[in-house]
Amino acid sequence: MQHIDHIRLSPDGEKLVILDQSLLPGSVRYIELTTAEEMYEAIKSLRVRGAPAIGIFAGFAMYVLSRSMSRGSHGEFAREFFEVSAYLNSSRPTAVNLSWALRRMERVVSEGAGLAADALENRLLAEAQAILDEDIGMCARISEHGLSLLKPGDGVLTHCNAGPMATSRYGTAIGPLILGAERGIKLRAFADETRPLLQGARLTSYELQNAGVDVTLICDNMASVVMKNGWVQFCFVGCDRVAANGDTANKIGTSGVAILAKHYGIPFYVLGPTSTIDLNCPSGDRIEIEQRDGEEIRSMWYTRPMAPAGVRCYNPAFDVTDHTLISGIITEKGICRPPYTESLAKLFK
Amino acid sequence: MQHIDHIRLSPDGEKLVILDQSLLPGSVRYIELTTAEEMYEAIKSLRVRGAPAIGIFAGFAMYVLSRSMSRGSHGEFAREFFEVSAYLNSSRPTAVNLSWALRRMERVVSEGAGLAADALENRLLAEAQAILDEDIGMCARISEHGLSLLKPGDGVLTHCNAGPMATSRYGTAIGPLILGAERGIKLRAFADETRPLLQGARLTSYELQNAGVDVTLICDNMASVVMKNGWVQFCFVGCDRVAANGDTANKIGTSGVAILAKHYGIPFYVLGPTSTIDLNCPSGDRIEIEQRDGEEIRSMWYTRPMAPAGVRCYNPAFDVTDHTLISGIITEKGICRPPYTESLAKLFK
Repeated sequence: MQHIDHIRLSPDGEKLVILDQSLLPGSVRYIELTTAEEMYEAIKSLRVRGAPAIGIFAGFAMYVLSRSMSRGSHGEFAREFFEVSAYLNSSRPTAVNLSWALRRMERVVSEGAGLAADALENRLLAEAQAILDEDIGMCARISEHGLSLLKPGDGVLTHCNAGPMATSRYGTAIGPLILGAERGIKLRAFADETRPLLQGARLTSYELQNAGVDVTLICDNMASVVMKNGWVQFCFVGCDRVAANGDTANKIGTSGVAILAKHYGIPFYVLGPTSTIDLNCPSGDRIEIEQRDGEEIRSMWYTRPMAPAGVRCYNPAFDVTDHTLISGIITEKGICRPPYTESLAKLFK
Repeated sequence: MQHIDHIRLSPDGEKLVILDQSLLPGSVRYIELTTAEEMYEAIKSLRVRGAPAIGIFAGFAMYVLSRSMSRGSHGEFAREFFEVSAYLNSSRPTAVNLSWALRRMERVVSEGAGLAADALENRLLAEAQAILDEDIGMCARISEHGLSLLKPGDGVLTHCNAGPMATSRYGTAIGPLILGAERGIKLRAFADETRPLLQGARLTSYELQNAGVDVTLICDNMASVVMKNGWVQFCFVGCDRVAANGDTANKIGTSGVAILAKHYGIPFYVLGPTSTIDLNCPSGDRIEIEQRDGEEIRSMWYTRPMAPAGVRCYNPAFDVTDHTLISGIITEKGICRPPYTESLAKLFK
């Protein structure tokens, strides 16, 4: 299988090259980013999206930007580096990976006060590369753990996109399906289209089709019938932030899928790297939920407005799935079971 | 309030004039229909939609078409009338009102063997008008019963469109909100956009806005959060067919709303005229569910394809909400409570 190389440096290391995911699946276009403003915009406009991918992006972004920063003194360099880092961090509030990756890059700068400019630059590049390599390894392990739950013929419903393009390779929520396809295990996927931004239609079904997985695309409101029909044995979703008690912030609509799964007796699993778990956040009600523009519902994408001009919209980007609805949280270290306050804390010991 | 006159005869009675609902809310266009093929297409393509409205449409359609049928003998006329009626009846399989209205028109023909052509024509017109007038009266009574449950400040979530344009006036599911607005009672509505055909965005939010109701449009997958936020005290939905045990076929996604409502402890009501209740159908698993084209999910409406070309889609038009999830069924005769096998049967005694 050809893996999609969607975040990379230009050969001279001067530019960040990304696959513009906002144009998929109609158009496969790579764009080059050089300024902090372009990088901020790429995150904000979802040209790069998916919590782990945003972390990888942020690592390489800070490396590229650091190369044009003042080298007068380490203090001067560090001040500029932290300023730009804070700016990128403000592009989207919900995903923990963005600030996690930025803190890793900042730490390299803080600890590199005694280094020559070239050496510090190399350390920043190595750190960005490490964030990427660790993610590839984590996704492979998450996919293994997820695949261990499945038997041939099983159907899996997923919501939004937690695939290779949201991470590095394999992805999280659909990683088990892609790994299964590589090994010739016959599995069926159902992808919620995921309104309003249609990541399931545009990205997940594209990635699954590419990987040779038997995939059926549905509207979000069809998940209930798909479950009732007995077509899915598991729900696998990604996560943008997991609180210490297991409450999970993920794409808007995830909590609804979890409630339906509980009603129909279908196990509901959250898949994500431990970097998505925020033990400092005691429960989901402490997670800030990004509110987005109503035009995403009213008219964006459409050939003509699909709602009366100016009708009020409510458009939260994420919701929180209560830990009581979650059968297990699958990380690169294994499968955590309730009570999550204990099982998640153990991951960090 | 100006009521929307969306199904009417041309002044000479030669044409059926309808508001083309497939163009709303961007364009308000009336179209004239004269042939059975045009009328079949209007139902099939959802230019007229909503079970009661299709029934009203079918009555006037058969009147218009009857005027150009052979008048050689009553037998000849009746054979042609029944043929055309069967043809219109095949346009959409799920709604009971279509065949119910056509049977009423057929009965006029069967019982009119002794009548002169003119007299029979007048009887057909009177029957079509009666179907319309009865619907206006029914919707007003349904709206009264629904409004009796609400107190000022309450929020109501609705799915798809069961408003004035799905019926005649007031509508069913949103009738209580429109009636409340007429009486100056402050209520809040949340309208699911209702993918794939977006009837909630295009029609429900348009009708509620027109009627002066405080309405917020959401994507289907946001209903869970709206309920969790405590913003809605009731769910009101329409119905396309209600089985004898209370199982209710309505727009795809309705069953999901009912499951969410149960989870959050929010009462879930089905509103519809008794003509939608099919005592010959013992339970929901006997209701045929229309499957529609996957392009409605993949590319229709959009400026560009929103899913990979040819990706498999599952696109049922309706789903069945289990009677155990329904708090009450509101008809023009009052509110039926469980057990529905008894309360619904009583309506017809």
